[in-house]
Amino acid sequence: MSRFTVEVRVTPRPGLLDPEGKAVQHALGSLGYEGVVSTRVGKLIVVEMEADGEKEARARAEEMCRKLLANPVTQDFRIRVSAQAEGVDER
Amino acid sequence: MSRFTVEVRVTPRPGLLDPEGKAVQHALGSLGYEGVVSTRVGKLIVVEMEADGEKEARARAEEMCRKLLANPVTQDFRIRVSAQAEGVDER
Repeated sequence: MSRFTVEVRVTPRPGLLDPEGKAVQHALGSLGYEGVVSTRVGKLIVVEMEADGEKEARARAEEMCRKLLANPVTQDFRIRVSAQAEGVDER
Repeated sequence: MSRFTVEVRVTPRPGLLDPEGKAVQHALGSLGYEGVVSTRVGKLIVVEMEADGEKEARARAEEMCRKLLANPVTQDFRIRVSAQAEGVDER
């Protein structure tokens, strides 16, 4: 077993309404920022997990996204897996 | 003026409570996922903006974070700036 850091980016699908993004864009305008063309707000979920390999870690993360972390109708997700430094928590 | 995509990652500071992360971790456990060591939930804010250069885009994004996007007491932020393909929206 090794430990992996899995970074999941969940973002609103292009073309779908993103009220939080609109609110942020409006607030930036109120603060005087010009030149802001668009703002989208998503989630960044960082999961540390033990797995037998990077492939397994990614497969589990994809399943987690489909089951819990992302709404497949309104959101896209992207996954980045990185192994943690060896020796840190070898058992 | 060129157009830049600025990606802001706002994450709860290490050591501070992250109730949303705890809720996700608990839910993953309920779904039968073992080996999840920790879960942290942050925000991913993607801002498209016009700026004179990458340096200016980054400086403005940092100011936006301090003023609006992140809570400096409880959250860290990281910024990644990328230029959009030339010719896409030249005016």
